Amino acid sequence: MIYLIPTTLGDTSLDNVLPRYNAGVIHSLRYFVVENIRTARRFLKQVDRDIVIDDLTFYELNQHTDINALLTQMKEAWAHDIGVISEAGCPAVADPGALIVAEAHRRHIKVKPLVGPSSILMSVMASGFNGQSFAFNGYLPIEKNDRVARLKALEHRANAEHQTQSFIETPYRNVQLVEELCRTLQPKTMLCIASSITTDDEFIETRTIAEWRKLLPLNRINKKPTIFLIG
Amino acid sequence: MIYLIPTTLGDTSLDNVLPRYNAGVIHSLRYFVVENIRTARRFLKQVDRDIVIDDLTFYELNQHTDINALLTQMKEAWAHDIGVISEAGCPAVADPGALIVAEAHRRHIKVKPLVGPSSILMSVMASGFNGQSFAFNGYLPIEKNDRVARLKALEHRANAEHQTQSFIETPYRNVQLVEELCRTLQPKTMLCIASSITTDDEFIETRTIAEWRKLLPLNRINKKPTIFLIG
Repeated sequence: MIYLIPTTLGDTSLDNVLPRYNAGVIHSLRYFVVENIRTARRFLKQVDRDIVIDDLTFYELNQHTDINALLTQMKEAWAHDIGVISEAGCPAVADPGALIVAEAHRRHIKVKPLVGPSSILMSVMASGFNGQSFAFNGYLPIEKNDRVARLKALEHRANAEHQTQSFIETPYRNVQLVEELCRTLQPKTMLCIASSITTDDEFIETRTIAEWRKLLPLNRINKKPTIFLIG
Repeated sequence: MIYLIPTTLGDTSLDNVLPRYNAGVIHSLRYFVVENIRTARRFLKQVDRDIVIDDLTFYELNQHTDINALLTQMKEAWAHDIGVISEAGCPAVADPGALIVAEAHRRHIKVKPLVGPSSILMSVMASGFNGQSFAFNGYLPIEKNDRVARLKALEHRANAEHQTQSFIETPYRNVQLVEELCRTLQPKTMLCIASSITTDDEFIETRTIAEWRKLLPLNRINKKPTIFLIG
């Protein structure tokens, strides 16, 4: 069995965002595939103060990992239950964990997702936008013309298909992105900005582009993990 | 403040899928907008055996509700904190709850999503498909030619944009839908079938269409809540 184990999205008590059941699963595991070993160890200690980290085997899987080398290295682990832990939130969504899940399916090993916080899903819930059809589009392109073209395409799809469109940006470029959105999108287009979800800084507001224009610069989301949604 | 309160996805212990924090929020609320009053009451009693249902005010919001009549009826409620509860899983996703959330934003009332199980998100996690770009498309069209055209369009978008495409069907038509998928999609296309997530019946498998063809009819998902994903 391979367990997909969510973590917190920032500074929050575990009881606020994780079911008690997850701690029991974590306690039973000895093998982990993690996006970042240091943060995964800290999370495991937080869940279970008595856990003996030295008894555990960690494999790191992030954007720098050679997946074939990792799968060779993991050979013995597949005989055991394995936990997958992301840097923040739900593993195998917006991180490379899906590669391990795909391998589990090829080996006909059961995959068990656990419940935890997902800024992608929680931002759809809290946006007030159509939740019967929505898309998460990951990061915007970096090059300026590509970005503008992409934003216009997302706005068009949100209108034409009535499908909520969400996307993210590297946090230090958030403030600049809101300004770009205000320049690029139609004044009547609805934009939800959902920042620092589940933490004390949580900020979730839905307004028209015309209204957001009056609130620039939106410094409060500077360097904070944020999701943008067009509805 | 308006709290978006997830419920279970079927027969599961609350501790398996809900953080402890949610019970405290529920305990503090007197006003609820719910998709179904009977199931919401049962859920609240399960969370808190000492809750006095008669002290609570319920407003029903489902596909039969006249939203304008509801908003008039709710006038006094907006002065208080309100909880929104769906029939199953996360409110305001794949249910009409988003209408209330949109109204809260218009009134500049803070919207607070709580953590809970979402079959839409958990199926993406467990599929092994791209989680950096994915779309939930709701129900398929009912008319046969429209369905085939829609499935081919979703398969095309999954390939062309490398965007995972998920959709649902009325549970009693699940077995028939798997047969349609096997007839309509390319043999090499990857399909994940995720059924009864978080319950004892949980079934999540990813295979090629060619492999699924050998497993027909897939009676085990008959009448079970199921998400289908093309990756």
